[in-house]
Amino acid sequence: MAKKSVYFFGGGKAEGTGEMKNLLGGKGANLCEMASMGIPVPAGFTITTEVCTEYYENKGKLPQNVYDETEKALEKVEKVMKKKFDDPDNPLLLAVRSGARMSMPGMMDTVLNIGLSKNTLPGLIKKSGDPRFVYDSYRRLIMMYADVVMEKAAGIEPADGAGVRHLMEEAMDAMKEAKGVTEDTDLDAEDLKNLCEEYKVIVKKCFGKNFPDNPKDQLWGGIKAVFQSWNGKRAIAYRRIEGIPDNWGTAVNVQAMVFGNLGDSSATGVAFTRNPATGENKFFGEWLVNAQGEDVVAGTRTPSPLNDATKTDANRHMKSLQKEWPALYKQLADIRDLLEEHYTDMQDVEFTIEDGTLYMLQTRTGKRTGGAAVRMAVEMCESGLITEDTAVMRVKPEQLDELLHPMLDPQAEKKEKYIAKALPAGPGGGVGRVVFTSEDAKEWAAKGEKVILVRNETSPEDVEGMRSSVAILTSMGGMTSHAALVARGWGKCCIVGCAAVTINAREKKFTVGNITVKEGDWISMNGTAGTVYLGQIPVLPAQPEKNKWYSKLMKWADARRQIGVRANAESQEDAAAALRFGAEGIGLARTEHMFFDADRIIYVREMILADNEADRRKAVMKLLDYQTQDFVEIFTAMKGKPVTVRLLDPPLHEFVGSLLEPGAKKELEALANHAGLKPAQVVERINALHEFNPMLGHRGCRLGIAYPEITEMQARAIITAAARLTKKKIHVLPEIMIPLIGTREELANQRAIVEAVAADVQKETKTKVNYLIGTMIEVPRATLIADKIAESADFFSFGTNDLTQMTFGYSRDDIGTFLPIYLEKRILDDDPFAALDQEGVGQLVDMAVQKGRSTRPDLKCGICGEHGGEPSSVKFCHRVGLNYVSCSPYRLPIARLAAAQAAIETPRACSKPNAKKCCKKK
Amino acid sequence: MAKKSVYFFGGGKAEGTGEMKNLLGGKGANLCEMASMGIPVPAGFTITTEVCTEYYENKGKLPQNVYDETEKALEKVEKVMKKKFDDPDNPLLLAVRSGARMSMPGMMDTVLNIGLSKNTLPGLIKKSGDPRFVYDSYRRLIMMYADVVMEKAAGIEPADGAGVRHLMEEAMDAMKEAKGVTEDTDLDAEDLKNLCEEYKVIVKKCFGKNFPDNPKDQLWGGIKAVFQSWNGKRAIAYRRIEGIPDNWGTAVNVQAMVFGNLGDSSATGVAFTRNPATGENKFFGEWLVNAQGEDVVAGTRTPSPLNDATKTDANRHMKSLQKEWPALYKQLADIRDLLEEHYTDMQDVEFTIEDGTLYMLQTRTGKRTGGAAVRMAVEMCESGLITEDTAVMRVKPEQLDELLHPMLDPQAEKKEKYIAKALPAGPGGGVGRVVFTSEDAKEWAAKGEKVILVRNETSPEDVEGMRSSVAILTSMGGMTSHAALVARGWGKCCIVGCAAVTINAREKKFTVGNITVKEGDWISMNGTAGTVYLGQIPVLPAQPEKNKWYSKLMKWADARRQIGVRANAESQEDAAAALRFGAEGIGLARTEHMFFDADRIIYVREMILADNEADRRKAVMKLLDYQTQDFVEIFTAMKGKPVTVRLLDPPLHEFVGSLLEPGAKKELEALANHAGLKPAQVVERINALHEFNPMLGHRGCRLGIAYPEITEMQARAIITAAARLTKKKIHVLPEIMIPLIGTREELANQRAIVEAVAADVQKETKTKVNYLIGTMIEVPRATLIADKIAESADFFSFGTNDLTQMTFGYSRDDIGTFLPIYLEKRILDDDPFAALDQEGVGQLVDMAVQKGRSTRPDLKCGICGEHGGEPSSVKFCHRVGLNYVSCSPYRLPIARLAAAQAAIETPRACSKPNAKKCCKKK
Repeated sequence: MAKKSVYFFGGGKAEGTGEMKNLLGGKGANLCEMASMGIPVPAGFTITTEVCTEYYENKGKLPQNVYDETEKALEKVEKVMKKKFDDPDNPLLLAVRSGARMSMPGMMDTVLNIGLSKNTLPGLIKKSGDPRFVYDSYRRLIMMYADVVMEKAAGIEPADGAGVRHLMEEAMDAMKEAKGVTEDTDLDAEDLKNLCEEYKVIVKKCFGKNFPDNPKDQLWGGIKAVFQSWNGKRAIAYRRIEGIPDNWGTAVNVQAMVFGNLGDSSATGVAFTRNPATGENKFFGEWLVNAQGEDVVAGTRTPSPLNDATKTDANRHMKSLQKEWPALYKQLADIRDLLEEHYTDMQDVEFTIEDGTLYMLQTRTGKRTGGAAVRMAVEMCESGLITEDTAVMRVKPEQLDELLHPMLDPQAEKKEKYIAKALPAGPGGGVGRVVFTSEDAKEWAAKGEKVILVRNETSPEDVEGMRSSVAILTSMGGMTSHAALVARGWGKCCIVGCAAVTINAREKKFTVGNITVKEGDWISMNGTAGTVYLGQIPVLPAQPEKNKWYSKLMKWADARRQIGVRANAESQEDAAAALRFGAEGIGLARTEHMFFDADRIIYVREMILADNEADRRKAVMKLLDYQTQDFVEIFTAMKGKPVTVRLLDPPLHEFVGSLLEPGAKKELEALANHAGLKPAQVVERINALHEFNPMLGHRGCRLGIAYPEITEMQARAIITAAARLTKKKIHVLPEIMIPLIGTREELANQRAIVEAVAADVQKETKTKVNYLIGTMIEVPRATLIADKIAESADFFSFGTNDLTQMTFGYSRDDIGTFLPIYLEKRILDDDPFAALDQEGVGQLVDMAVQKGRSTRPDLKCGICGEHGGEPSSVKFCHRVGLNYVSCSPYRLPIARLAAAQAAIETPRACSKPNAKKCCKKK
Repeated sequence: MAKKSVYFFGGGKAEGTGEMKNLLGGKGANLCEMASMGIPVPAGFTITTEVCTEYYENKGKLPQNVYDETEKALEKVEKVMKKKFDDPDNPLLLAVRSGARMSMPGMMDTVLNIGLSKNTLPGLIKKSGDPRFVYDSYRRLIMMYADVVMEKAAGIEPADGAGVRHLMEEAMDAMKEAKGVTEDTDLDAEDLKNLCEEYKVIVKKCFGKNFPDNPKDQLWGGIKAVFQSWNGKRAIAYRRIEGIPDNWGTAVNVQAMVFGNLGDSSATGVAFTRNPATGENKFFGEWLVNAQGEDVVAGTRTPSPLNDATKTDANRHMKSLQKEWPALYKQLADIRDLLEEHYTDMQDVEFTIEDGTLYMLQTRTGKRTGGAAVRMAVEMCESGLITEDTAVMRVKPEQLDELLHPMLDPQAEKKEKYIAKALPAGPGGGVGRVVFTSEDAKEWAAKGEKVILVRNETSPEDVEGMRSSVAILTSMGGMTSHAALVARGWGKCCIVGCAAVTINAREKKFTVGNITVKEGDWISMNGTAGTVYLGQIPVLPAQPEKNKWYSKLMKWADARRQIGVRANAESQEDAAAALRFGAEGIGLARTEHMFFDADRIIYVREMILADNEADRRKAVMKLLDYQTQDFVEIFTAMKGKPVTVRLLDPPLHEFVGSLLEPGAKKELEALANHAGLKPAQVVERINALHEFNPMLGHRGCRLGIAYPEITEMQARAIITAAARLTKKKIHVLPEIMIPLIGTREELANQRAIVEAVAADVQKETKTKVNYLIGTMIEVPRATLIADKIAESADFFSFGTNDLTQMTFGYSRDDIGTFLPIYLEKRILDDDPFAALDQEGVGQLVDMAVQKGRSTRPDLKCGICGEHGGEPSSVKFCHRVGLNYVSCSPYRLPIARLAAAQAAIETPRACSKPNAKKCCKKK
């Protein structure tokens, strides 16, 4: 049997079902579903997405069977609607609409009122008794057809506000002006009839051919135009953003027209079965008397509220459908209940009332805010509509982000125009006065000012200033630049790589185009969208723990996930935030930030300047007490939960590079004095530390191997802190992590040092300390020989930031020049520093876990790269058998929810050899 | 049965054989072998290497069976030698010597004359009738025993010229002074007897205990000292350099002493069965009358030549053994023939003549120069001693290097002391006058001066100056730094990373310690050893093609290898050298060097400064004719052999960075003028190109994707050049290589551009051009998805330099700070940029070959990283099934020989699915 290409629906029956979205598109499948449920939908049929593919394969030709099946389906529509297409007495009019698998709102074309022609106009006028309505429909047909079908056939890609539509709008405006009226509705039948003639002249002028007077031609023109619009510029761009494959194709829905503009007993509206902004379980929508659907969407008339309970300040004065036509409202509200019951999710519906009769034109799962998603999921579960599993699956993990950060008031933000848009590196909203140096940020903040630090880029020396700021804006850097990493770690609003901003730090100002912003000026930033505004926009605070729906959802999620969650945190404050957001430990406590503290940096620099081991050891050991205190604090804060401490990682140049800046002359001299050197000698030593590619230079364990005293000091600080607390009967579990391991010998070398120090300290303090020694897997080579490395490692923690850098050969600090081009040209689907590259980097992670456990079956494996808080990456981590993910505290809820979804989607079998080790124990 | 620990040999019999080197060490196994062959060796026994391992495992204790077996073996020795150990009348004296699997000459300890004591001295004096000889032997025993055994037991690691030996040498000198003589031989028996007593006092003073008068104690002290010396500092250092595992251990050889110092009918000597310096088939050696072996080696007396045919200027006046004692010479020469026949290789032997009787003390395969190795292998094969396969296996590929470069005259070099030693980046010798800038190098060279360019580092802009220099010295950088790569490519002498050199470029001088070298001063460099000398050392030229043995050996090698060899070359000169050294094509023609040409750099810079596609395209296209001409030249030079052209690879900053230097102000202004910009704008644009990690930045195919016009221009140049030559019936085979591919999409994108251009050009020129499009596999990710990449690639060329950088996370420009430490601490066995890391990087190469051929079975695979000319890496390439290796022209013979050896060691089965493709067709 040949493939079926056309599916009929209507009159309480349908050839398709709601399951057939891939074939019929979302709209078509749902129309079939509604028809089958007995919900009144105008009869119609769907031409499948497969036909779209064939259309492109055959270079714009449709197979014969599509024509044949359409013919038959059209007959059924005529039967149900009791009208006939192209019938002079009782003509059937048709709507032709697109419908892809996934909703692509407004991105493809629609042609309404197909079937109006010289032949059918008189009959319809007679039948409706309303010539004005008929000519109004006719002028809409001509405009849409010219705009959508004819312009496309002429090979013109319509731009907004240009082309034939624009000429027709001008003609209408001219007519209104001539008549001295302002509203379309003020034009009478005769006016509209004349307008139609004018439109036809415009068509002839634009395309050199007449508007087709044959309804069949109109129908096929419309169908092909919809297929054609699948590859329109807007549609392609949208698919890129949403990640929709180009080869899915769109279906075409041909449906009997029903008219909301058939006088004052007709209307049209859109509605959500619950409030999409708040999630409140109230029927929510808008409607317009005597209008077609596009009028509601276009915003040319202000629509009325659906019911009294959901009135807003903007429409409180207007009459609700509930009040106006209670019976129809009741019928609509019943359908709402039926749809929610049936789809078990919030629906976004379109309806039309034609002369007092209700028709549903569309239903689809409605988009919602994060807060609404959480509330709906929980309330639907509590009312028994969905299971807890479904509730957990229902919320996109990223949507939680909205609940976790203060944000710009969306209403207020909507009224402003942003001056620049760049990478949304740290979510939430920030409003403050612009400063240009870390020093200024600290000073102003100390005086109680809210400040936003604006820099070309930030370095570890800026950390204090960044902490003092409510938000950070940089003109350079990517999503994993220093500024982005630090800000996200703190859940602080941050926008990076804002190339539009030209900073003049000397004059303390920046410019965007011809706008100049000076020190002290107010700006507002939406770090979730990456937008920057002039002036102050109000901010709404975040208190997720006060949100009962959020709390309940997270409880369900935690009960389901099979993978632990930890936080990347390195201070008491971070640790507190981590616990508040559900951390089960710290997966990455970097120690280098501790080195930048003003009290200590002098010793760090002394250590760096030392040219022999004895001097270096002396300098290093001056840091011991400070570091010990750091660890006492963080271990105490974490209350016995495991804490992974990474030994010193960055190249030493980072601690001294700033001394070469012109402004640091005094500091340099002071250091030289302290170290008993000439300033020139200090400069020489700093210059010697310069590296061409510091990312691939002398850092990580390479430091600890060259200067074992650094490892010794850090190990001593960790074990001493642990011993001190153990003595006080405070439980501690340090996990000492050696960074940047690439060979078995490196880890064996560093492990031996740590073990020797640990044995010493335990002997000295007469205390037994539990601790683990493991490594960060971040160098590709480490994944290749993970079996050998595991022989010396109690745990692996995947440093997927560096692993991504080296696997791709992308410097995350330099990616800004080509990543946008790569995304634009679809070379990459995603920024691999945002979502873990499962195809490439993921292969290495998977390989390393398997190889590692082949020699050490109980190897604990986690991830501490930025990916640990990104949902698709968290799911990947679950699938490859990691024991935990670690991310910045503010992304913990997202990781928890993603992990729960992964467990529901692909539960890990607990009969696997490593199950006990790799699954979260409860 | 318990493990046998002691193996006896002597009297024409032996318990061991020459095959048992692992167990008995080289010396012991060969003594057994010689004994079995009926060659006169002093009887003795070998304690196995396994005992050494046990010795260390048991913390310095030996198992009882070793004592028992030694006792029994000693009895056999006594029987054969007809003497008795510790016998007052006819005492047997013993030598205790080390003997590892692989020769470690001079690195471990020896004790001779064991068995002399108050008890045995009188008997030996009586028996020998020579009290002087006896006391001479006794004083040697005391000194050696004190130095080797007692100092070790006291836990002192003897340093050169320090310790007990030094005190004893002083005592001897004092005695000679007192007697008014200069030679040891001038001391009489009484003197020596007194000296022995003085020595004993020194022993007592140094160690607080007496010299042991019990021969058994002496024996076991000696045996343990030899075991102990396996872990002496010198031995460990030597093993590190030679890559000998620590756990092999040494055997101990205990052997009856025979005396070359028993008067004027005794003698001792060392000999090579052929000349080790030239390979000439003449018995070659030296001997000394009335001496012990150490005298020959120590150089305290000038030895005589073995025969007249091998006399040198230094010993022409001396009497040869041949003349002195013809019968003994005849016996020795017969043994020489027997040994070469038996071992089928040149032997290095030691012999002693005791009172007219010849004893062989040792035979082992002799070390030889590269030239000698080649000549011996060929001549031995031609005389039927060895097969062609064996001849090919006999020469270490690296040894060929000596034949391929001019070198410092070794005789002259030996007399000089080097002022600095660093990384031997480019082999051969170079002598010239020091200059500090590329400009100066060019100017001076133009005037006919030989210059050596001395820089902190070099960049592509220095290439002209480097070419003008006879050698290059840099104070920074590693074996794959820019200077090293370029120099090696040209076969030019180069030493890099010479941190001892402090350059003051402004004052045009450099200092090493307190030596100052100014512009114009002469220095000499040995690029094979990495040594720098003051002044001029004579240079010997290289003309391998005139060496008939070399030519024959290479013919045999080429007949055997199954893998092709290509050269990395990018100019006509390079191509000529490549063909001269046997290239079968070009495996890597970089195009960026072509961009630096003085005529073109302005257009390159114009291209870089363009801020829109149209301007950029205009600038790029100005390079088209130049590039076309480049390719015409190189294709013509290569005479139809395949030429792999890599499209532009380096970050654009490299072409403009130098403009920011203070000296480039005029050039900058000229460029600004040319481009119609202000100098400040040019500076801004250049600064915008700065990258934190240029290695991981906007380079490789990322350029071609961002700026497709660059790819278009280069593809057009290549195909146009090919078409032009094809029309002239000159055969061409361009292989277009897209660099730095990490995703399938990148290659598809670039391939499409190249194909479109190629189609255009072929249409325009009405010529069909054969060409391939492939990619450089150098990003780890590419190896992981090689199956997908191969769908768009006709060939893979492994860029193992970058692949190594990214797999290890090592910047080759920055590795200098930690690589020496890593080698010193045995974290790494080799510099991974010199020898391919088979364990890690090799895994990726292997994986990529397999994955690539899984989707494209005929995928051509090669390597074009520096490793392509390193023997162990070449063998790896053979084993993983690559089709060819490509390296700098001057390393081609090495690659050819290594490839032949690989084919002999592990022939590739031609029944494999890819055999036809992956094996070299002949």
